[in-house]
Amino acid sequence: MNEKPILVFQTDFTYKEGAVCAMYGVVKSVDRSLEIFDGTHEIPRFDTWSASYRLYQSMQFWPKGTIFVSVVDPGVGTSRRACVARTIDGYYVVTPDNGSLTHVKKYIGIAEIREIDEKVNRLQSTLETSIFHGRDLFGYCAARLAGGIISYEEVGSEYPTCEIVAHEIQEPKLEFGKAEGIFEIGDPNFGNLWSNIPVAEFLNNGFQYGDLLNVTICHDHEVVFNNKVPFVKAFGYVKRGETVIYTNELMKISIAVSLGDFCETYRITYGQDWKVILEK
Amino acid sequence: MNEKPILVFQTDFTYKEGAVCAMYGVVKSVDRSLEIFDGTHEIPRFDTWSASYRLYQSMQFWPKGTIFVSVVDPGVGTSRRACVARTIDGYYVVTPDNGSLTHVKKYIGIAEIREIDEKVNRLQSTLETSIFHGRDLFGYCAARLAGGIISYEEVGSEYPTCEIVAHEIQEPKLEFGKAEGIFEIGDPNFGNLWSNIPVAEFLNNGFQYGDLLNVTICHDHEVVFNNKVPFVKAFGYVKRGETVIYTNELMKISIAVSLGDFCETYRITYGQDWKVILEK
Amino acid sequence: MNEKPILVFQTDFTYKEGAVCAMYGVVKSVDRSLEIFDGTHEIPRFDTWSASYRLYQSMQFWPKGTIFVSVVDPGVGTSRRACVARTIDGYYVVTPDNGSLTHVKKYIGIAEIREIDEKVNRLQSTLETSIFHGRDLFGYCAARLAGGIISYEEVGSEYPTCEIVAHEIQEPKLEFGKAEGIFEIGDPNFGNLWSNIPVAEFLNNGFQYGDLLNVTICHDHEVVFNNKVPFVKAFGYVKRGETVIYTNELMKISIAVSLGDFCETYRITYGQDWKVILEK
Repeated sequence: MNEKPILVFQTDFTYKEGAVCAMYGVVKSVDRSLEIFDGTHEIPRFDTWSASYRLYQSMQFWPKGTIFVSVVDPGVGTSRRACVARTIDGYYVVTPDNGSLTHVKKYIGIAEIREIDEKVNRLQSTLETSIFHGRDLFGYCAARLAGGIISYEEVGSEYPTCEIVAHEIQEPKLEFGKAEGIFEIGDPNFGNLWSNIPVAEFLNNGFQYGDLLNVTICHDHEVVFNNKVPFVKAFGYVKRGETVIYTNELMKISIAVSLGDFCETYRITYGQDWKVILEK
Repeated sequence: MNEKPILVFQTDFTYKEGAVCAMYGVVKSVDRSLEIFDGTHEIPRFDTWSASYRLYQSMQFWPKGTIFVSVVDPGVGTSRRACVARTIDGYYVVTPDNGSLTHVKKYIGIAEIREIDEKVNRLQSTLETSIFHGRDLFGYCAARLAGGIISYEEVGSEYPTCEIVAHEIQEPKLEFGKAEGIFEIGDPNFGNLWSNIPVAEFLNNGFQYGDLLNVTICHDHEVVFNNKVPFVKAFGYVKRGETVIYTNELMKISIAVSLGDFCETYRITYGQDWKVILEK
Repeated sequence: MNEKPILVFQTDFTYKEGAVCAMYGVVKSVDRSLEIFDGTHEIPRFDTWSASYRLYQSMQFWPKGTIFVSVVDPGVGTSRRACVARTIDGYYVVTPDNGSLTHVKKYIGIAEIREIDEKVNRLQSTLETSIFHGRDLFGYCAARLAGGIISYEEVGSEYPTCEIVAHEIQEPKLEFGKAEGIFEIGDPNFGNLWSNIPVAEFLNNGFQYGDLLNVTICHDHEVVFNNKVPFVKAFGYVKRGETVIYTNELMKISIAVSLGDFCETYRITYGQDWKVILEK
């Protein structure tokens, strides 16, 4: 059995052209025996917030030791750091240090971070170009680490974890019978929105499945949605086209239209300026 | 060589966010040595008919014993059954029992079906959420089955195959020189439409390659297309932009525009109410 | 460790339905131990130029011996040849001979080409259909070759490499301080355009990073873009929304909008009739 760590890639490249193919070719050229998985290659272009969230969303379900390679890299070729982080629970993330580690740092914890030494861990045949570090630096370095060609220490010099670039994360506010948060991300396929309110705290503040809640959504302080919405365990508890509050796959309070698309129906999306208030 | 069954996944999740990644992580955490393939993750949302057809379309080409995991699951978290079917020719399908087994049941045959015992074969770390059975139930159970952790009998209790939920399938009508059917699905990329008329019966009723056929398409009894169209072996037998009747990859009579898109050109699609009549 | 060649597939099928799934099933049925990668399945429909470019873009990064299967095949079922090419540097390409080998032939070199013998190397269970050679011929034959069931000689008869079907390739013209070329392809996700001007020749003709260049783009002899644009190493050297000239991942002079989309912004695309002139 293959005992080398699995490599999971996520990027904003899409599969529309040959970039992912070239990147994976480099990995297999470093070590033919490495196992590669697509995390996703459809992160919105340049969106390091989404990159950060998707790492946080999926990492915990993989075997310990798995190496994630996250390449959403608008600053490629500039002075932003290229790094490999080691989490406190034993995963690795190879990524530009540009906000992509925000959620992993806050909710999982980073034990150690090292800047990739480009003199050693960069593909040498492509030095004339500076715009594809997924292939030339991140993928190549990750393959060397996974293949055991270098140890984690040989990635490059350690730097303080307090220097990791992070986006601001807003915390929800809960009191008995009232919860305030933001929609911090969503599922772009099904049109659901995911708040930053954990179900455990929600239930601890007097909410329970079956409640009919007063839901208010504000965009830049303007109310854009105000309705009574049931809090249910799954979409099928209501009729097609009805809105539900539910607990999503990361145990956060979320909103959806059953067999529909909440975002499209109500033209509501996520971000720091999309606030949600739930009241009994 | 890996002797454990291959896992082939098909869902309506897309790769736009981290769901597929989390689901595959669970599989590899159950058994690192399992081999996973993307069937497709672009089945139209909530479309159990398409899920059923895509299983039927591709299953037969995989090695016997392959385990298909099909997750188009609008009723997730409700009382719909979660099951593993065993086909008469030795494949397995892990799926909600919601119509996704329609074609496999009718055209291949299901020898045995078992309801997944959630007490044993559900991921225990995510019990607080009820909306992602692809990750928490179907993927997890399939990995346990493929990895040999459970036998097929240990999936859960058997139930009668006559209870399998199935969509209605319409049969074509053929007589000498005339064939009537419906377009039951298509190829959304190339804009072709696939009827339910098997080429063997078509040829047995006097049709032959080279014929110029009278093709009538009705939508809800209204004629939306009526033209002379040649019956040919491949698209290249006519000029760019011309329509052809041909035999598709599942040996069904189909329609296409050569180097074009029939669906888009004529605004015609598939379903029970899209009838096609071919006459010599 | 698996010593059989890796199979890398590229097609214009997309993952919207079950075609890729069926094709890969055939491969695994021929030899369970074969390793398959998605190059891309999103080549524009029928576009053999893009197929050719994507092979050229990614092939060199894979281990020697890798077998590429390229199925953009508008002439499927007609008299176009189905072939396996062996490059001078030791890769294989299984493809219709329809222009898909243009760049590999010119920039890498084809040592030998053989026409696939359909009597031996075609799937026998699907002879009634003639429209899915990705599954029935190219994938099946490639699997037999990768699995060692047939030698390269057993693919079929050799034919002269001078008979390989190729698109016309335009060469750039360079003089001191002036470079003329075409945009021969782009990155459809990021909206960048890639010219046919190699950076080495560009630098040899007096251009250097930091220059502010006069860039003129003509479509069918009409000027559609004329601006001063800096020549920089990476996108981050300018502000969001500003245009740059840069060296792309294949060491060709290219144009982009930083954190934007050049193609969309200026409604400019690629092809023989999109000329670019760069002057110091």
